[in-house]
Amino acid sequence: MKRLEQLYEGKAKIIYATENPDLVIQYFKDDATAFDGVKKGTIVDKGVINNQVSTKIFQYLEENGVKTHFVEQLSDREMLVKKLDIIMVEVVLRNVAAGSICKRLGIEEGKQLEPPTLEFFYKSDELHDPMINDSHIKTFNWATEKEVEILRAQGKKVNELMVAFFKQRGIRLVDFKLEFGRHKGEVLLGDEISPDGCRLWDMATGEKMDKDRFRFSLGNVEEKYQEVYNLVCGQGK
Amino acid sequence: MKRLEQLYEGKAKIIYATENPDLVIQYFKDDATAFDGVKKGTIVDKGVINNQVSTKIFQYLEENGVKTHFVEQLSDREMLVKKLDIIMVEVVLRNVAAGSICKRLGIEEGKQLEPPTLEFFYKSDELHDPMINDSHIKTFNWATEKEVEILRAQGKKVNELMVAFFKQRGIRLVDFKLEFGRHKGEVLLGDEISPDGCRLWDMATGEKMDKDRFRFSLGNVEEKYQEVYNLVCGQGK
Repeated sequence: MKRLEQLYEGKAKIIYATENPDLVIQYFKDDATAFDGVKKGTIVDKGVINNQVSTKIFQYLEENGVKTHFVEQLSDREMLVKKLDIIMVEVVLRNVAAGSICKRLGIEEGKQLEPPTLEFFYKSDELHDPMINDSHIKTFNWATEKEVEILRAQGKKVNELMVAFFKQRGIRLVDFKLEFGRHKGEVLLGDEISPDGCRLWDMATGEKMDKDRFRFSLGNVEEKYQEVYNLVCGQGK
Repeated sequence: MKRLEQLYEGKAKIIYATENPDLVIQYFKDDATAFDGVKKGTIVDKGVINNQVSTKIFQYLEENGVKTHFVEQLSDREMLVKKLDIIMVEVVLRNVAAGSICKRLGIEEGKQLEPPTLEFFYKSDELHDPMINDSHIKTFNWATEKEVEILRAQGKKVNELMVAFFKQRGIRLVDFKLEFGRHKGEVLLGDEISPDGCRLWDMATGEKMDKDRFRFSLGNVEEKYQEVYNLVCGQGK
């Protein structure tokens, strides 16, 4: 499957058309941004790592009954996926308090959240992805009630599966963001699942192994992404 | 029923004990605050007006099957109410976009919201009353699932009743905040319902008739509170 014209360039990926109108190619860049694009930089080989990690996790989720946009990995930085009509509602699951929720609700970082929280955010760079609820989604027509049900149910299911997946690899899944889209009447999990959109802590040491290293200039960014890759995909790259 | 010791002083009201441990007295002050207490001032006779307006609305809601803490009006500034164990979740209903939702979600002020939105906020001055959802309420144990159901159902019912009530009086009910509490195993509507916690626009002219006049120094604050009083309670004070 060959790349045709570029359809969209995001902060970390480029989407290309293919000969098949139902399929597109996700190209993973090394560009990293944080704080709504205020901080910009490069994480060497991030694109390669996120492509492989996402591939592995999408395959695992598909095997466990989660419908995703994943079709196949085409190259180091390219993934063939089903073309989605993106739902503008992002789904965030949290098992441990970290990031924005700590300041917002006065919760100490590291506090276990039981049951895990599920939050919806409106996908808008301009508005800084504000938190929303079911009633906003309905009033502003961002998704149908049926779709919201799927987002909530799939969000919880993906969290359970991923907590187990990372635990087996010595990683504590702190939180993560999911995006979904419509494809031929179905709601599919889209985007990527990688250290860019998940908070991952080393179970033994508590060390952060995700984009927070870049966000807060903690050093060893590439090394920790590589470590996640090794643990998720096996040794070597 | 006589006032005994002061139990609590809030921004706009003082709560006093009575001889009956199940009942307390709400005393309505003229103090006005905005922007989490950053702006402070006095609205002359606000306490008197809010007490009468709240009395009228609580009576109307009770007649229509909404359980409230209201027992009786004792004096110009005193209301006898059932003592509540306050639920830390505030309920906000919006029929028209105004205030925080406009900036937060990029909605133009004045846009009709259909269906009306319902939002939960965590009652915390320190955290500036952050927006929360069902999942936070559950994880942090701020209310039971049953209570959340009641908050949502009563919020919607109160909105329908109040939209009709104000419409009959030439006032557009833009949005409002409700607080609830537990009393002998029941969830009751508490606090007050007045131009302090409701946005009210003159249906004919679009003029604001609520605390936004104080917040944004629009002038004629006392006059507009008085006008709401006249329309809600009949002529004269």
